[in-house]
Amino acid sequence: MTETASPTHGYRLQFASDNTAGTCPEALAAFNEANRGFASSYGNDEATAAVCDRLRALFERDAEIFFAFNGTAANSLALASMCQSYQGVVCADTAHVATDECGAPEFFSNGAKLLLAPHRHGKLTAAGVREVITRRNDIHYPRPKVVTLTQATELGTLYQQGEIAGIARVAREHGLKVHMDGARFANAVASLGLAPADITWRAGVDVLCFGGTKMGLPVGEAIVFFDKAMGEEFAYRCKQAGQLASKMRFLSAPWLAMLENGVWLRHAAHANAMAQRLRERIAPLAGAEMLLPTEANGVFINLPEAAIERLRAAGWVFYTFIGGGARFMCSWATTEAAVDHLARDLAEALEG
Amino acid sequence: MTETASPTHGYRLQFASDNTAGTCPEALAAFNEANRGFASSYGNDEATAAVCDRLRALFERDAEIFFAFNGTAANSLALASMCQSYQGVVCADTAHVATDECGAPEFFSNGAKLLLAPHRHGKLTAAGVREVITRRNDIHYPRPKVVTLTQATELGTLYQQGEIAGIARVAREHGLKVHMDGARFANAVASLGLAPADITWRAGVDVLCFGGTKMGLPVGEAIVFFDKAMGEEFAYRCKQAGQLASKMRFLSAPWLAMLENGVWLRHAAHANAMAQRLRERIAPLAGAEMLLPTEANGVFINLPEAAIERLRAAGWVFYTFIGGGARFMCSWATTEAAVDHLARDLAEALEG
Amino acid sequence: MTETASPTHGYRLQFASDNTAGTCPEALAAFNEANRGFASSYGNDEATAAVCDRLRALFERDAEIFFAFNGTAANSLALASMCQSYQGVVCADTAHVATDECGAPEFFSNGAKLLLAPHRHGKLTAAGVREVITRRNDIHYPRPKVVTLTQATELGTLYQQGEIAGIARVAREHGLKVHMDGARFANAVASLGLAPADITWRAGVDVLCFGGTKMGLPVGEAIVFFDKAMGEEFAYRCKQAGQLASKMRFLSAPWLAMLENGVWLRHAAHANAMAQRLRERIAPLAGAEMLLPTEANGVFINLPEAAIERLRAAGWVFYTFIGGGARFMCSWATTEAAVDHLARDLAEALEG
Amino acid sequence: MTETASPTHGYRLQFASDNTAGTCPEALAAFNEANRGFASSYGNDEATAAVCDRLRALFERDAEIFFAFNGTAANSLALASMCQSYQGVVCADTAHVATDECGAPEFFSNGAKLLLAPHRHGKLTAAGVREVITRRNDIHYPRPKVVTLTQATELGTLYQQGEIAGIARVAREHGLKVHMDGARFANAVASLGLAPADITWRAGVDVLCFGGTKMGLPVGEAIVFFDKAMGEEFAYRCKQAGQLASKMRFLSAPWLAMLENGVWLRHAAHANAMAQRLRERIAPLAGAEMLLPTEANGVFINLPEAAIERLRAAGWVFYTFIGGGARFMCSWATTEAAVDHLARDLAEALEG
Repeated sequence: MTETASPTHGYRLQFASDNTAGTCPEALAAFNEANRGFASSYGNDEATAAVCDRLRALFERDAEIFFAFNGTAANSLALASMCQSYQGVVCADTAHVATDECGAPEFFSNGAKLLLAPHRHGKLTAAGVREVITRRNDIHYPRPKVVTLTQATELGTLYQQGEIAGIARVAREHGLKVHMDGARFANAVASLGLAPADITWRAGVDVLCFGGTKMGLPVGEAIVFFDKAMGEEFAYRCKQAGQLASKMRFLSAPWLAMLENGVWLRHAAHANAMAQRLRERIAPLAGAEMLLPTEANGVFINLPEAAIERLRAAGWVFYTFIGGGARFMCSWATTEAAVDHLARDLAEALEG
Repeated sequence: MTETASPTHGYRLQFASDNTAGTCPEALAAFNEANRGFASSYGNDEATAAVCDRLRALFERDAEIFFAFNGTAANSLALASMCQSYQGVVCADTAHVATDECGAPEFFSNGAKLLLAPHRHGKLTAAGVREVITRRNDIHYPRPKVVTLTQATELGTLYQQGEIAGIARVAREHGLKVHMDGARFANAVASLGLAPADITWRAGVDVLCFGGTKMGLPVGEAIVFFDKAMGEEFAYRCKQAGQLASKMRFLSAPWLAMLENGVWLRHAAHANAMAQRLRERIAPLAGAEMLLPTEANGVFINLPEAAIERLRAAGWVFYTFIGGGARFMCSWATTEAAVDHLARDLAEALEG
Repeated sequence: MTETASPTHGYRLQFASDNTAGTCPEALAAFNEANRGFASSYGNDEATAAVCDRLRALFERDAEIFFAFNGTAANSLALASMCQSYQGVVCADTAHVATDECGAPEFFSNGAKLLLAPHRHGKLTAAGVREVITRRNDIHYPRPKVVTLTQATELGTLYQQGEIAGIARVAREHGLKVHMDGARFANAVASLGLAPADITWRAGVDVLCFGGTKMGLPVGEAIVFFDKAMGEEFAYRCKQAGQLASKMRFLSAPWLAMLENGVWLRHAAHANAMAQRLRERIAPLAGAEMLLPTEANGVFINLPEAAIERLRAAGWVFYTFIGGGARFMCSWATTEAAVDHLARDLAEALEG
Repeated sequence: MTETASPTHGYRLQFASDNTAGTCPEALAAFNEANRGFASSYGNDEATAAVCDRLRALFERDAEIFFAFNGTAANSLALASMCQSYQGVVCADTAHVATDECGAPEFFSNGAKLLLAPHRHGKLTAAGVREVITRRNDIHYPRPKVVTLTQATELGTLYQQGEIAGIARVAREHGLKVHMDGARFANAVASLGLAPADITWRAGVDVLCFGGTKMGLPVGEAIVFFDKAMGEEFAYRCKQAGQLASKMRFLSAPWLAMLENGVWLRHAAHANAMAQRLRERIAPLAGAEMLLPTEANGVFINLPEAAIERLRAAGWVFYTFIGGGARFMCSWATTEAAVDHLARDLAEALEG
């Protein structure tokens, strides 16, 4: 199986998702480094303490911080801690929590309802959020209690600081809390060039699920409660829900490595740049209609069905959507050569 | 922090739990090796397929196999899949699911009740199980639907093949399924010297949660459904409950390495041997009363309060129980020197 | 408070909902009659046995039958028994379970997702159901497991026998079960003039929630499992979910009275006739646009905002919908005089 | 079926439970009276407003008040509102919530664990509660958050005011809230001769589930939040959990009748007196060993197995417990003649 051993193993899978990439070198080194002797379990180890401090410094805030194994759990548990079962969570109808979690938010919260608002380029608008919040106020309808927004969005776009603040203001006015699904938070920060605090708590976000896996970790997401009181008992929630790692150091040490010397931002900026490069290569092609702005690490493009089929026949793996859109995701591991290769094959596929 | 870099880092934590040890070399190598190029996510990768096949071969059974991040989730999800919310799970009153999961089985099952049976050396008895099952049969009491037994037990003892079969027979007679919490399944197999199949499905076990973490993995447990029909939709359950790893290869590849060439059994046998060595060193000491047989990797001993305090003052970390018992756990990483060191310090502590 | 004692107490509330009416005379008499001496609790009484037999005769089927206190619970518990937490329930986007139960189906099922299909006059279509079922089949989306349809619908329309059968056929093809929310089942049967069996199990319905309250009972709905195996353990589910009445005779005896001599159908036919009468009175009015067919006991009409305000100023209570629609519901207690009175006031309101 | 029509119908069932009795005359009259014209649904009616005011007056407190259909739901929903899924509820091991609710508290709370304390005559002790609260404080064990005590207890005894206050003090010291399961609260108040406030909020109780059914209602329990803030969103919880009656007047009007002119206390005092009379009749009998004080409406007695069999052969229905105890419950409907009849038959049964 020499092919398996190749560093370009799975090469044509790479644009399918940013989670087809492996662990970035810095995280892997830290993982190996963490394997020294013995450590207290369940997060009572030095690496976990250190990364929490590091995150507090990064966010310029004395936040309460926890780790969960994946984004499904991080987001769902955070939302469950922010509302009761009979309340509602406002989200875009394109939100991952609504479309791709197999009912996880409802499961963890024991029934909280996702209240869908229409999206614009994958983003909630303040007006749309207000409309959902004020639509009903009777006992037969879940009282909205949280707004969740995804940054970067599922459609590869970004909330500007003012957009977040605007939505948060509406939320606050009506007594709602604000949650941010940051599965691709690194891509957002790298692209916007703002301080993490500026697009989170300073803009009104209460809780951030900071994605580690798509950023280059093997496993693990951070949950950041900017209001410490809100996170007070979250450790119990993690424990009960099967999200407390016994050998926590293997989650936390790689996180620490990512946060040192801007590693996380360098990788995220690279992924974003690869998406820009891809966009630039394919935007001019006849038959390729760019569907959305490319603000983070994903490119969304409308392609003729025949081109999609030819591209797949060439071995490339990628997601398509009802109506014809195709999605290409870039990661820390995407190379310029791979982008150019895909662009060439796509051009050929379009030519037929 | 040179001390931090030492291979004996955390040295005196090591007997606190078998999860204070790190990742064993074989698993770590496989983890690193798995980091090649790109791979399909969510378990659709080659390593995951391979380890499932390997587990099927190990168990001599066409089983349905899944991976979860930790034991809390593996056991709770498996139990939830085996019963309804209004049913009951018979377990020993010493069972980890009852004493140390912060209500996780009840959470994942949405209310299934743990029906406690008295233990003998940490083990259920067929008679005790029968008594719990037949105690009530009215609508106001959860109908027992599953028996769960822990192998090796929380008290360092082992179910013999006949004991499992006896309990499973009682379960079967009354329409219950049998679940095995195998957080330390490797220690049990290594100690009993029997085929895994002999103490699982051949003895009547329907579902095994096969512990990876305590065996030497960084993260990850396997859930083995010996009756494939019972596991048919378990993948959805994992997904919804936040237990489906996107970069699954980092869970599965180390598993595969453990199963090659008997690595898992060699490490487990070593842990067991270290426990035996510890027992042999301390059993003769005046004031040290052995509380339980040492059949796996834990030593349970009654110590005077003063000795406990002195041992702790010497830096050793370990759990004690109401009534005076102390627990010392050994792992793949425990050395003979450390055992002897602990035994010496314990002897001194007893001398006062 | 002599007005309070008036039989026309709350007169102008009556069109707000069919649940503003009280208990019909036959049910009330039976309730009083049931208050003889002592009776076994939790449904082990004679009246409960008798009404179950009566329902089996009515449906020409050896069904398994249970009682719940209200429709929220009946529908949600039935759905919970028909699917797992990680599965989906297909319903019209106008379905009461989706719009007016404050997340009850998600709560009782611990997270099953309602998968909304577009409605036509409040009804699902076979094509729409098929589209929702086949839209996705990946692990990140709840596998559809139940279709629920409301008969009569929330918009006062009826499924014809063939429509039910068509939807059930699609469901069956894809392995889904069929649930009917029959909060106004009596109105449907009275209007269609078909045997209850013909529009339930013979058309492919597996479970019916047969509404008692809107039909004229003080409290209580019946849950009818046409496939006995599906209802085998439902009694436990009712008990655990707080839906098992201790003094069950007070729920069951009035049910029995309704089923004797066609009382239920006579009352339902009356309610339907009152709705027709109302429609006939107001349809010709300028400015009153009938929005939907009037097939059961509700009239839906588009009114100018000013007319709505004047009607409310006259004391009438009724629901309106975004976009201008007003709903007027009739019940067993609605009189011709009241209908004519409302029609007159409405005419005046329209004239301004 | 003339026997069915007899006022002594089910005569020999009457001591099986206080819920085998029907509706007391005052409640029945109010139920009939409530059936006037139309009323706003879901509790927005006059009777419901009136009974809430009446309860506030009775408890001398501006409490928040709700109604649920039965005790399972009232207690489980109240407990769910008082804790989170990862917390624990301290109760006596004889508590109905632990022994006879088929996992309802766990279901409604999505996993909160019942932490059992040993009982003395069916009562918690302050020391026992403290022991359970302080036993563990690690992340792997549910943090105790509520103490629940049953008044009158399941064993027919009563908490004295000081006992409640003592337990509440321990609870308060450790940050726990206090819940009272008052399925037989009327019997307790009637027996103790104290103001309801004195054995509830003045003694430290936060939430009372005030039983209506066993007191003489056909259906319905009141949930009284003495701290209004704690009940702020409870209406949503009731709605989602299927506990909001549409025709609420039929629950509330009979409650109102009970509270007028001390009807509730007169009936409860009668039930208590019947239990005392029964005790006095049978205590002197050779072979009848009184097991517990008779402080409310239940008599617990140890009988030889042969006597139990003979009594059952004579047609009497009653519960027995493992170990030989028999329970006889009295209600508002129990007559002196019936008590004397039972006592005579019991004497005969003991004579053999």
